[in-house]
Amino acid sequence: MGAGGGARPRAADDDVHAGDETPMSDEFEELWSELAPVGRNRITGGYRRFSWGPADTEARGWFVSAARARGLDVETDGNGNLWAWWGAPGPEAVVTGSHLDSVPDGGAYDGPLGVVGALAAIGELRRRGLRPRRPLAVTVFAEEEGARFGVPCLGSRLLTGAITPERAGGLADADGVTWARAMEAAGLDPGRLGADHELLGRIGAFVELHIEQGRALVHSGAPVGVASAVWPHGRWRLDFSGQADHAGTTRLADRSDPMLPFAEAVLEARRAAEANGALATVGKVRVSPNGTNAVPSRVRAWLDARAADEGALRAVVERVDAAARGSAAEHGVTVNGFLESKSPLVEFDHRLRDRIAARVGGETGGLPLLTTGAGHDAGVLATAVPTAMLFVRNPTGTSHAPEEAATGADCRAGVAALADVLADLTGAGPRSRA
Amino acid sequence: MGAGGGARPRAADDDVHAGDETPMSDEFEELWSELAPVGRNRITGGYRRFSWGPADTEARGWFVSAARARGLDVETDGNGNLWAWWGAPGPEAVVTGSHLDSVPDGGAYDGPLGVVGALAAIGELRRRGLRPRRPLAVTVFAEEEGARFGVPCLGSRLLTGAITPERAGGLADADGVTWARAMEAAGLDPGRLGADHELLGRIGAFVELHIEQGRALVHSGAPVGVASAVWPHGRWRLDFSGQADHAGTTRLADRSDPMLPFAEAVLEARRAAEANGALATVGKVRVSPNGTNAVPSRVRAWLDARAADEGALRAVVERVDAAARGSAAEHGVTVNGFLESKSPLVEFDHRLRDRIAARVGGETGGLPLLTTGAGHDAGVLATAVPTAMLFVRNPTGTSHAPEEAATGADCRAGVAALADVLADLTGAGPRSRA
Repeated sequence: MGAGGGARPRAADDDVHAGDETPMSDEFEELWSELAPVGRNRITGGYRRFSWGPADTEARGWFVSAARARGLDVETDGNGNLWAWWGAPGPEAVVTGSHLDSVPDGGAYDGPLGVVGALAAIGELRRRGLRPRRPLAVTVFAEEEGARFGVPCLGSRLLTGAITPERAGGLADADGVTWARAMEAAGLDPGRLGADHELLGRIGAFVELHIEQGRALVHSGAPVGVASAVWPHGRWRLDFSGQADHAGTTRLADRSDPMLPFAEAVLEARRAAEANGALATVGKVRVSPNGTNAVPSRVRAWLDARAADEGALRAVVERVDAAARGSAAEHGVTVNGFLESKSPLVEFDHRLRDRIAARVGGETGGLPLLTTGAGHDAGVLATAVPTAMLFVRNPTGTSHAPEEAATGADCRAGVAALADVLADLTGAGPRSRA
Repeated sequence: MGAGGGARPRAADDDVHAGDETPMSDEFEELWSELAPVGRNRITGGYRRFSWGPADTEARGWFVSAARARGLDVETDGNGNLWAWWGAPGPEAVVTGSHLDSVPDGGAYDGPLGVVGALAAIGELRRRGLRPRRPLAVTVFAEEEGARFGVPCLGSRLLTGAITPERAGGLADADGVTWARAMEAAGLDPGRLGADHELLGRIGAFVELHIEQGRALVHSGAPVGVASAVWPHGRWRLDFSGQADHAGTTRLADRSDPMLPFAEAVLEARRAAEANGALATVGKVRVSPNGTNAVPSRVRAWLDARAADEGALRAVVERVDAAARGSAAEHGVTVNGFLESKSPLVEFDHRLRDRIAARVGGETGGLPLLTTGAGHDAGVLATAVPTAMLFVRNPTGTSHAPEEAATGADCRAGVAALADVLADLTGAGPRSRA
């Protein structure tokens, strides 16, 4: 997989390709079709790219090859994030990119659109005969979904210091393999984990192109929008511990069945979200021993909750916690709650947002502004550097599932908008002939 | 593992060992300690012996060695059940035994007590200088728990024709491996699957020794009891199908979240069981894709239900089904229910039960009579041949969990009772000296 090795469709020396007339759409589609099969399950049609696993490694390898083939210098930072530089890394750099890992059976666009789109946007700048006056980089953040190690945006959180290297390094997957051990197995040094203020200090602006994970753009009739804010959100783990027993012989009164308070918590999460105009989801559960004729000894469940403000978010989580504890006490079960990750409200940089809306929106008077309940690396970066997000319309509104979609025309519109933004922010002017 | 190979503590020729004075307790404990480590998880302390897997294969190998070392002729029938014969197989045979497979993290006694106890009871008959006048066999039934292939008592159901070879052969484990394929991998011929009327026709009586999976004997103060009936019981699978979506962006109103009707079904199962004096358990769940930030596309759950009569059992299942369908309709989820296995009320043979109670109960005026909600191979055999069960007291009352227990004294009492029963049923008399 990948364009690497002998095939180098774009060379390191811009001037050689100054007259390259490959249409943008062809380059986007060429890159897209290279990446599309990697980690795709043939039965479900969904993607299973889990950090440091075979499909993720193949996708990262594809990126390194494709970036190098386009004359970019690729580095891996101490946290496993990839950086492909056009021009020497330096101050006031403009960075774009997204991630390549997926949720279990995720869609094709969540992450890859922003990576493929970034490479295609660089091609577009070149076709326009533009050369950035500031360093420009494409980044691929590690473990954005948190599907393997539980904490989303792990690569960007580490970079900005939002999580300590000690805690991140010790995060374990379902088989007990830690983030540190998995990095090591991938040939990286977990001793380098942690905030990288030198690298952050070079970034003048970060812009992430992403598939919309709802239908706001469908309603507004625009192919591309710009983000105004990310809702505060978090993940909580609830461990319900009871007593395994024979399902056919243990009297109801003698049971400590953790499945019952778990079920109460699931239903209360929905009620609490409705009451607070929020979102709450229990999408992941592990039952032990998970036998048909055994009362479970333990049910471990994860609550994902998001709301427009911190007060509503807190209200949802407190209601679920209270329901879980009340039902657990009734059934002789103990419950322990753990906050796995929490992201505060993120308002994207207003100046950057307005500049983008003006530049890209052009004659139509600006792009639609969207809020989102989804966390993104851009939301983490926003705490450290001026950050913006562009969304591409998703006709199904569905994400984290194979039905996630975007038309080719909308993807091209997204890439063109990103190219406009990058040209503007890097002060790109016509290339001088050497 | 196992006593096999060069070590033959009991020889084929009884007379050689006519004067053997090894106390029964030593033989039981020797056999028990050989089998105890097989498939035991060091962390949980529970057993993981799944049919045809490494631990199950090792346990079966141990049985073959131990039986041969005691001069028994071991055969495998067409359904994967083991038969160790003392005397040539023939009519009016008395059979005892149980199973060696376990639920996930099951206890040590459920199954093995009846197998180890059977071998120790044969040793006891020999020590008493008795020789059966009818053939005597120890059997190990395959896949009693249904932990791997979903249908409990699969070996005995196949033997009696309670399940067709076509359906059994096609049962698949979590990885899609079928019962037929797993048997083949173990060197057996799935072409031989199915009812074996010749073998069944030889059996005059079947007696299973088993750990009690409740506390009735604790309350009655007796170490050993005899079963009167097995409650009707069954397993139903409920498939809730919705639409995977991003947990952070999909509006509650746009969701089809199968976790919600699943949770309603869990709670209704408990309420329905309480209302009907029955037992209902949801102990096994599989969620797809099982990601923290993904609304599930599917929740597959298993309901285990048991009741004193068919009417109460039907009432429980109908209430759960109605609650699942009602909530599913409300949430845009479809639900499909499948009966995986069902066992009618089994009343054990009254003549056999009374004979056992009189013989074993002796001066104390009989053994306590117990009903049980647990399915057993004896319950399946009872549809074809006169069958009885002996229970050994379990101080914890817990089963299908590592806490399952029995004292050494109670195990020995169980073995002595089984030896009494076997002596009586086989018409065993003093051995003639050759």
